[in-house]
Parts: sequence; C-alpha cells; structure tokens
Amino acid sequence: MLTYDLESRGGLPLYEYLYRRLRDDILSGVLAAGERLPSKRALAEHLRVSVITVEGAYQQLEAEGYVDARPRLGFFVSPVDQAPAAASPPAASREPPPRAWRLDLRSGRIDPSCFPSALWARLTRRVLSEGGHLSPAPPQGLPALREAIARDLRDFKGMAVSPEQIVVGAGAEYLYLLLAQLLGREAVFALEDPGYPKIRQVYGKWGAPCRPIPLDAQGLSMEALRASGATAVHLSPAHHYPTGIVTPIARRQALLRWAEEADGIVVEDDYDGAFRFTGRPIPTLQSIDTRERVIYMNTFSQTISPSLRVGFMVLPPRLLERYRRELGFYASTVPALEQQVLALFLSGGGSPAGSWYEQHLSRTRKQYRLLRSAVLEAFAACSFTASLTDRGAGLHFLLRLRTEEDDEALRLRAEGLGVRLSFLSEYAAVPRAAYAHTLVVNYAGLEAGRLPETTALLEEVFWPACS
Amino acid sequence: MLTYDLESRGGLPLYEYLYRRLRDDILSGVLAAGERLPSKRALAEHLRVSVITVEGAYQQLEAEGYVDARPRLGFFVSPVDQAPAAASPPAASREPPPRAWRLDLRSGRIDPSCFPSALWARLTRRVLSEGGHLSPAPPQGLPALREAIARDLRDFKGMAVSPEQIVVGAGAEYLYLLLAQLLGREAVFALEDPGYPKIRQVYGKWGAPCRPIPLDAQGLSMEALRASGATAVHLSPAHHYPTGIVTPIARRQALLRWAEEADGIVVEDDYDGAFRFTGRPIPTLQSIDTRERVIYMNTFSQTISPSLRVGFMVLPPRLLERYRRELGFYASTVPALEQQVLALFLSGGGSPAGSWYEQHLSRTRKQYRLLRSAVLEAFAACSFTASLTDRGAGLHFLLRLRTEEDDEALRLRAEGLGVRLSFLSEYAAVPRAAYAHTLVVNYAGLEAGRLPETTALLEEVFWPACS
Repeated sequence: MLTYDLESRGGLPLYEYLYRRLRDDILSGVLAAGERLPSKRALAEHLRVSVITVEGAYQQLEAEGYVDARPRLGFFVSPVDQAPAAASPPAASREPPPRAWRLDLRSGRIDPSCFPSALWARLTRRVLSEGGHLSPAPPQGLPALREAIARDLRDFKGMAVSPEQIVVGAGAEYLYLLLAQLLGREAVFALEDPGYPKIRQVYGKWGAPCRPIPLDAQGLSMEALRASGATAVHLSPAHHYPTGIVTPIARRQALLRWAEEADGIVVEDDYDGAFRFTGRPIPTLQSIDTRERVIYMNTFSQTISPSLRVGFMVLPPRLLERYRRELGFYASTVPALEQQVLALFLSGGGSPAGSWYEQHLSRTRKQYRLLRSAVLEAFAACSFTASLTDRGAGLHFLLRLRTEEDDEALRLRAEGLGVRLSFLSEYAAVPRAAYAHTLVVNYAGLEAGRLPETTALLEEVFWPACS
Repeated sequence: MLTYDLESRGGLPLYEYLYRRLRDDILSGVLAAGERLPSKRALAEHLRVSVITVEGAYQQLEAEGYVDARPRLGFFVSPVDQAPAAASPPAASREPPPRAWRLDLRSGRIDPSCFPSALWARLTRRVLSEGGHLSPAPPQGLPALREAIARDLRDFKGMAVSPEQIVVGAGAEYLYLLLAQLLGREAVFALEDPGYPKIRQVYGKWGAPCRPIPLDAQGLSMEALRASGATAVHLSPAHHYPTGIVTPIARRQALLRWAEEADGIVVEDDYDGAFRFTGRPIPTLQSIDTRERVIYMNTFSQTISPSLRVGFMVLPPRLLERYRRELGFYASTVPALEQQVLALFLSGGGSPAGSWYEQHLSRTRKQYRLLRSAVLEAFAACSFTASLTDRGAGLHFLLRLRTEEDDEALRLRAEGLGVRLSFLSEYAAVPRAAYAHTLVVNYAGLEAGRLPETTALLEEVFWPACS
C-alpha cells in the first residue's frame, strides 16, 4: 500500500500534501497508467487519516485529470507524460533600467508640479465615496465625460460636436490602433515627414502602407499628397511635431478639397493645440469640415498628465455608424474612476467658477510662456546656436546648431556627458540634408532657475564641435 | 475704410471681436484676396480703439493664414475659399440607450457590493498624497505592480514568473491586440468553438485567419487542432467559456507537445481561473511549460471589477525579446494611479495580514460559492430545467432546457418580458444541433434573496415552450 511520511508535510493541509505526493508518483511513473488506487477507506486506515482527507486528495487528482473515477470501481491512474514541472522562473533578460540623465531635451515629460494634485485628490475622493467608479463605462466612454469634452470643444475651440460622436480611449496610440481598424485594410496613410514616429510605427504594425509626405513652409505638400495615392492623411495642423509649422487656413481648405476629391479621410491630431502663446487657438480642420471628412483627436497627456492615459477622437456621423457596427464590441479601455474624475475636472462639477480644466490650462499656459521666453533667451545667447525657430506655440522648438559635425557623433558625445538630445533628422522617414545639425528642444521639463547650469552643460557638449 | 459696430460685440474682447469681423469679411469675399488692409494706426484711429487692439486682431489673422504680412508694406488678404463654417453639430445617430432588464443572465457583471470600496479609497488617497500617480509607468507597466503580480502567481498558482516577463495592459481586448501584433502577420489562430466571441472578433479585425476547433469532453480536440494548420491556439483550460470544461492534465500535456511539434504558441487565457469552488486551483499550462511555448494572460475584471480595465500577460523569454524589439514603443495603457493602487492591493502594502487581494478573493469566493449553490438548487427545481452542468468552477453554468422550441424564438419572447438570456448556440462559429436549447447562466449578478422572483419570471418566459 502507498505509504507517505505525513510528518514532513510542513505547513500544508493533509489533503493537499497527500495530493502532491500522489501526483508526484504519477508523474514519475511510480504509479503507472491504468493502475488502481487503494479505496479511500483503505488508504485512510493505512495512513491513519480521515476518509475526508483522502477524498479531498482524490478529487483534486481527478479534477486535474491525473486519475479517472470509474463508478463503483474506484480511481485509476490516467496516462500522463512524465515531464518535470519547471521549478524556477526562466532567465528573462533584464529590462534596461531607465537612465538618470543630467539633462533630457528629448522626453516630452511635462513639469509634474503643474498637476493640480489637491483638486484631483478631492475629485477622486468624491467619485469613490459616491461609488461612481463601480460601473464599467460604455464602449465609447462615460456619457458625462463625453458631454464635458463636447462642451469644452465648443466653448474653447469653437467646434460643434455632439457627445455621441466622441470615442474615449487609453491614449493616442490605442486610438491610432482603433483608427486603423476603422479605416480598414484598404487604407493607405499619408504621414508628415518629418513627423511623430509612433504614428508611423502603429500604422506600420497594423500593416497599412504609409507614404511619407514632405513639408513646405505651410505644412504638408499638397502636390506630394495628391501624387501619393493615399486614402487617409494623419497630420497636426495646429503645431507640427517636430518642426512647429502651423498650417494656415488656405492649406487647411486645400486639405479638405483633397479629401473630397480623393474620397479621403483627414485625421487631425491636435496633440498640443492647447499651447498657443500668441493670440487665440487656430480653428481646427474639424470645425471647417462640412463634408464629414475629418476625424479629430486629442489627449490629455500634455494638458493634464501623460500618466493619465486618456485621449479621445471625434468621428463624423457616417464613420460613427461604421465604428458602432464594426468596432462597437470593444470595451472602453479607460478605468471608470479616471473617466468620472476627468468629467468633473472638465465640467467644473457645478462650481460657479466653471471648468477647472480651463483654469488649469490658463495657469499652465502662463507658466510655460514664462519658461519658454526664459529658455529661448538663454539658448539664443549660446555660442553653439546658429538660429532658433520660434513659432509661438507648443512645448518644443527647433535650434539650428553652429556646426558641421554629424548628428550621430554629437548625440553620442552628449550621452557620454549624461545629456539626452533629440535631432530633427531622427524624425524623418526620408533623410534630407536640410534636417541635419538641428536640435528639437522639448523644454517643458526644464527649470527656469537652473538655466545657467543647463546652457553651461550644453556648451560643454558642443564646444568641440562648434568652436 | 472698414467700419464695424464695436458696441455689438457682447462679452468678447475688442481685439477678438475685430478679428472675427475681419475674418468673416475675408471668408465672405467682402475683403478680396490680394487687398491691402488699412495700416494698424489708420484703422485704430478710424475705429477709436488702441493700436494694440488692431495689432492683436491682425496677428491672429496672420497666424491663421487669413492675411500675409509683407515687411514695410503692411497686411494683405490671402486667397482662401469662401466656405461657411459648420454652425451646429452634425446629426449623429443617438446611441442606443442601455436597456434596463428585469433580469439579465447574459451580462458577466459581478456584484458591485463585492468591491472593497473603503480599502480601495484608502489606498488611492495614499498614492495621491505620495504623488505616485504623477510619473507615467514604463511600457510594460509599473515595476512594483509586476513584482506584486509575479509574487501572487508564485504563491497562489505555483507559477514561476519573473516581473520582467509581465506586460500590463488596459483589459483583455487590448492584450489580444498586442498579442496579434506580437505573433505577426503569418499567425493562424485556433480558437475554441464554442468560445468567447471577442477573441474571434479582435483577431478577425487584426486580419488573422481563425480556425474554429470543436471541443470534446476534455477541451479542444487535438485531432482537429493538428488538422487546422494553426500556428497559435488561444484557450481557457481552467474553465472554458461558456461550456465550463476543465482541461485535464493529459490534454494539457498534449497541447504542449503539439506546440513543440508544430512550432506553435499556446495562449492560456485564465479569465476566471480564480473561481474554483472545489479543491485547489489547477496548475496552469504556463507552469508545466518547459519550452517557452505558453503565453499566460489574465485580468482583474472578474476578481476586482470590470470597471478597472487592467489585465496582464506573461511572455516566455524568447517572445519577451521580440516584444521589446518590435512593440516596445507602445506606452503603457493603464493610468499610473490604478497601477500604484493595484500594486498596493496585491502586495498588502507591508501589512502583516499579507495580500489584500487574496483576502478579498477568499471572501468573494465564499460569497459566490453560497450564491452558486442557492442558484443551482433553485434552478434545478424549475419545470423548464432538463439538466444542469455544474463543474464546480467559474461564474457561469449551463442549463439544458426541457423544450424543442427554437433558441431565437425563446430569446425574443424573453426580451418581451424584460429578460436577457444567453444561449450556448450564440457562442458557436460552426452551428451544431447539440448546442441548441441550452442557456448559459451568468449568475454573479443575481441576488440570493430574490431567487423566488427570478425563477418565477423564468417560468413565465418558458412555460409556453416547456409545457
């Protein structure tokens, strides 16, 4: 009869210890396939344990398929492979730890002190106490959030949008994936070149053909767009990344005419449209589109926090129908808690002062305007600066270097000194000599008070190249 | 000279009102392309406003491309189309409002009273006050969260997983999308038939060929799998949806052998592996995989709340390398706040009682075990019940109806009475007569105290069919 030392079972319950020993004997072949296990009563008596203990072990063995129960005959060992279970985790390669840079001009990280922490915590407590986080949001997002977004678009961008047209999603890249699915397998994408690399990467992963379209002073070249055979164009007319080009009204109208003639779709990616430092925000393509050709999209990554992971898109009615029919099965990807809190933040939650979001934006805009002037002034005075391109918008600008040295060599020397740079040439799908020797300065993470150290460090990086 | 009635400007600032009137005149053709605007000083004197006001309006017009500034010559109207801007939101079709059912046996919605609201609110306050929500999580997810998940998998499922292997994402469907991208364009998916429809829908949207594989009593038919030509199989061995089949050890080993022979991948979707009511949880495929063939995935939708939108997958090292190389550019889709709170909840945050998650699970399991027995007992006594399939696991079971009436007719009659049913036949890609007349009862949202009303309502639905 099977004999196990039940004293050496450690902290395990008796039935589980017995189950494990029996399982090991089956896996190691001590108990062969087809063999009959002792009856519960017999084994219980033999091991001086209760029948219930043996029953628990046999049931678990049966549930996992190690034994078969045959009515009135008992339990029989099933045919199983005798492979040992993996004991320790396989050696996964370590993730490269995030590097602590002395200076990082590449990351678009915004200043965390801008985050409205106290208010956010208060709104979060309110939602949690009211239980608003318990019900999953419908696929397109929480109605209250979509209403608040539509109201904000109307009041501050002059966009006439109904909440039904809005789809909320977990950040820009997820929305690109949804868009690719919405526009279907036959879509050919025209993308700004240079441009934001993740747009190319996501559409590329999806398998869509992507046509890089060069830019002129007004944005996307219409001639190149017409010649590309694209059926959709994805662009940032408010403030192109990384050149900062603002697309004027005539070019915007030309884009809409192209869409009409080519039966195409314009994806308007307004990723930092909120940061315009002179005058009012420019009217969006969406607001001058009368033929349902424009999909507008934006996120709260730059305006609130990139750690929030919330974006949205506005679909014209005819694409909305298609979205509901073909993609309506996708559950909302944003937690209900975030959606509730963001809805309150956007709407002002009935407070007489109105939208907390717009108050926050107005404060942040002022902060960045000051920071931007200070950074532009400090960088203009540097010996490595040939020229600055300031278009009065966005959280980055271009800086042309007074050097003939190769971008890659400069990047490597900078990294050796703990400085992370970003070059215009890195954003191009088609390399062009005109892009060389130009930095993309993402300034939102810099500190005004530490600009002397910042420029001194950059002088150290560039002096061998620019002197 | 241009003359505008500045008294009728309402609450707008002077410069903005002037900008709007000029813009309207350009768009309507009153000011023709090429025409020179009055000098700032002249217009200011004419309208009795300050030069700064006119300057503000001209600058905005220039920024938007309505006028060109020519140095020393002044401002000239640009050639633009004269299209009116859309005035009111286009008529988007209303979303179908969610129906309020008297009884819903279809939705997998869990009982919201199970959610640990007070503790969750406390942990959220802690994270917000410590500022843990401000930094975006790295692409694979917050290290603390992945460590907590790895520890939980080790302690409660006997899985040896390192945190580096884990990728956190915004729910199961987002993870399916990532998986499809990871396995690439050449992948052919074998899917359980019947099975969870969203798996088919997501892979289908991705454009992957999907092969429905019939089930036998032990799960996926190995013969059909081998004949399918699939390179990946996606299945739920712990508790299949909707049949509840538990795949025994011999079949699990056969699946791993298939993966080895066919150079295939096994996606183990453990969506409700936590709810096993008899004995211990069954060892996962991942834990007996020694050849890096298994991708394990799970979410916290059933165990904590579907409104949380957090899931994760465990990649074997060789696929992890590929993930980082090809998909490493994707930012994490889960807000930093949720990741921090969930990490504390899983780890117990240093509390001596250990994981709050496991305490919560143990409480919920007890609650569902009681509810399940009550529901099974009540439904077994109903006149429409031919048989119940109870496999001691999961938040659903099958109920065979004592009827020959068509499923679709039954569904329609039920809807007329405010009852939402779910039939086994709806989950099949390939229809089979054996699936007919069988309900999938998702019982987690039912109330034990109201079971008499529930069964009375169902008797009302079925009596014309079953009498």
